[in-house]
Amino acid sequence: MPRSPSNVVIREVGLRDGLQSIPTVLSTERKLEWIREAHAAGQREIEVGSFVPPRLLPQLADTPELVSFAKTLPGLLVSVLVPNLKGAERAIDAEADVLLVPLSASHAHSLANLRKTPDEVIAEFARIRAARDSAGSKTLLEGGIGTAFGCTIQGQVETSEVLRCMQALLDAGADRVSIADTVGYADPGAVRDLFEQARAIAGERFWCGHFHDTRGLALANVYAAMETGVARFDATLAGIGGCPHAPGASGNASSEDLAFMLASMGIDTGIDLAKLLALRAKVADWLAGEALHGTLWRAGLPKTFDRSAASAATA
Amino acid sequence: MPRSPSNVVIREVGLRDGLQSIPTVLSTERKLEWIREAHAAGQREIEVGSFVPPRLLPQLADTPELVSFAKTLPGLLVSVLVPNLKGAERAIDAEADVLLVPLSASHAHSLANLRKTPDEVIAEFARIRAARDSAGSKTLLEGGIGTAFGCTIQGQVETSEVLRCMQALLDAGADRVSIADTVGYADPGAVRDLFEQARAIAGERFWCGHFHDTRGLALANVYAAMETGVARFDATLAGIGGCPHAPGASGNASSEDLAFMLASMGIDTGIDLAKLLALRAKVADWLAGEALHGTLWRAGLPKTFDRSAASAATA
Repeated sequence: MPRSPSNVVIREVGLRDGLQSIPTVLSTERKLEWIREAHAAGQREIEVGSFVPPRLLPQLADTPELVSFAKTLPGLLVSVLVPNLKGAERAIDAEADVLLVPLSASHAHSLANLRKTPDEVIAEFARIRAARDSAGSKTLLEGGIGTAFGCTIQGQVETSEVLRCMQALLDAGADRVSIADTVGYADPGAVRDLFEQARAIAGERFWCGHFHDTRGLALANVYAAMETGVARFDATLAGIGGCPHAPGASGNASSEDLAFMLASMGIDTGIDLAKLLALRAKVADWLAGEALHGTLWRAGLPKTFDRSAASAATA
Repeated sequence: MPRSPSNVVIREVGLRDGLQSIPTVLSTERKLEWIREAHAAGQREIEVGSFVPPRLLPQLADTPELVSFAKTLPGLLVSVLVPNLKGAERAIDAEADVLLVPLSASHAHSLANLRKTPDEVIAEFARIRAARDSAGSKTLLEGGIGTAFGCTIQGQVETSEVLRCMQALLDAGADRVSIADTVGYADPGAVRDLFEQARAIAGERFWCGHFHDTRGLALANVYAAMETGVARFDATLAGIGGCPHAPGASGNASSEDLAFMLASMGIDTGIDLAKLLALRAKVADWLAGEALHGTLWRAGLPKTFDRSAASAATA
């Protein structure tokens, strides 16, 4: 039987994918505190925000300050999302470590969400690659393929189209490609089938899996993905998030539940669960009244959980 | 890579494991309606109650009537839980199809829950087997090993002790053996390891996996168990339940979320999800104010979900 990887990275995307769909606007001060404490809890990859026009997403208008602060934290890989060349130029100027360009494999979702077809996004990606190279920048370029398991607008999304987009992104100069179940339609069988094929195409350039917990399957999907060798997953503290253009979508994989599952399996994430749960309590307080998710915060760690092993990783 | 089974049975245990930890007492009339509609939705195995002294669990005092009614439904396998020989004799008299005797692999939990050591339960199981055989009864005897992944009282439970209890139950005459994560301590890696070993010992007599969703891992654990060839799982509608003697334990795998995961994976359960969701809404109404779980009822079925295939199974 396939073995799960021995190390897995949880990329915290709560500050971007989480907050962008939440009405409560967090102050920059609190976001800085979140980033600082996530880092102190052992998180080493954080998507801190998005370079979109502030009038579209006022919640993420302070992204430049967040990038600038996050880059001072030792060993932290700082990601941002950008929708186009203009956003990419800002991310490159800010010296973000990773710049993620979302592409929706659903034509209908792509038009609704990005006002571009998938092929127009791929063309834009090639322009971003040219801009990155001519700037002599070290920012890594990640193409993130969303609605990869279906779409609330279009319905079915063909696997062949997901893989075609992935190959095209790589051809356009992507350093990394990722797959997202934007609307919570994936199941473990579909994940394993698609991720096996994606890994065959992209090899080590396959970067990250992103699962929403809309129908309770996020952790089962992560487990199935790990069996194909994928070892990096997006998640949000308290499972906040969803996509405003995908009606019904709500809740990412919860970072703390995912970290617990991995730690229980003996997989090293570098995360101190007690610290992460303390941060979750703080963020939950800041977001009082918003829909939060996850189960571990309520049940607590099992009596058998090896706290010393978990905290040794960040000692 | 291992393949999941093509057919999986979801045994509904909401009427026993669910209701026994819920203060609201459902009337016998409503329980009969639940059983009738679960059957109409395609469920073919139901644990309808428990033969325990009514003063201990008044909620389950009408078990004889429920067994008697359930046995009139075509193709339905009727299970009951019994704690001892006396209960087993009542179950045999009632002509239950399956009689489940719980055994706790945690010595401390066994004493707290059953007032017997695991070995005393095994000895009682041998007496139950003798009673069944001398009655010329067709009731199948199932030994269900609980706290198999750890215990809130004792902490660690050794795999070797779980497997020793399993072998001893088989030696004492169990027709079937099952494994339960009574308190939600299991993770997919531990499930795969234990279930592989259990299947090696019990073969086709390994009957059922029972997972609590206390820390959100129930469906991931089911997926991991299926990879070892196990094809029957306990679940409760709306995820109700828990063990009153295992503090902090709450929520079984939700029948409707599990049925959705399996249907999405193309695994036949015979369940009509629309009918099951309608029943869930009814039961949720009956149990207003109680803690209910699950995600599918809120998100609904995906646009891509093949309703015709799902309902064809029970047409």
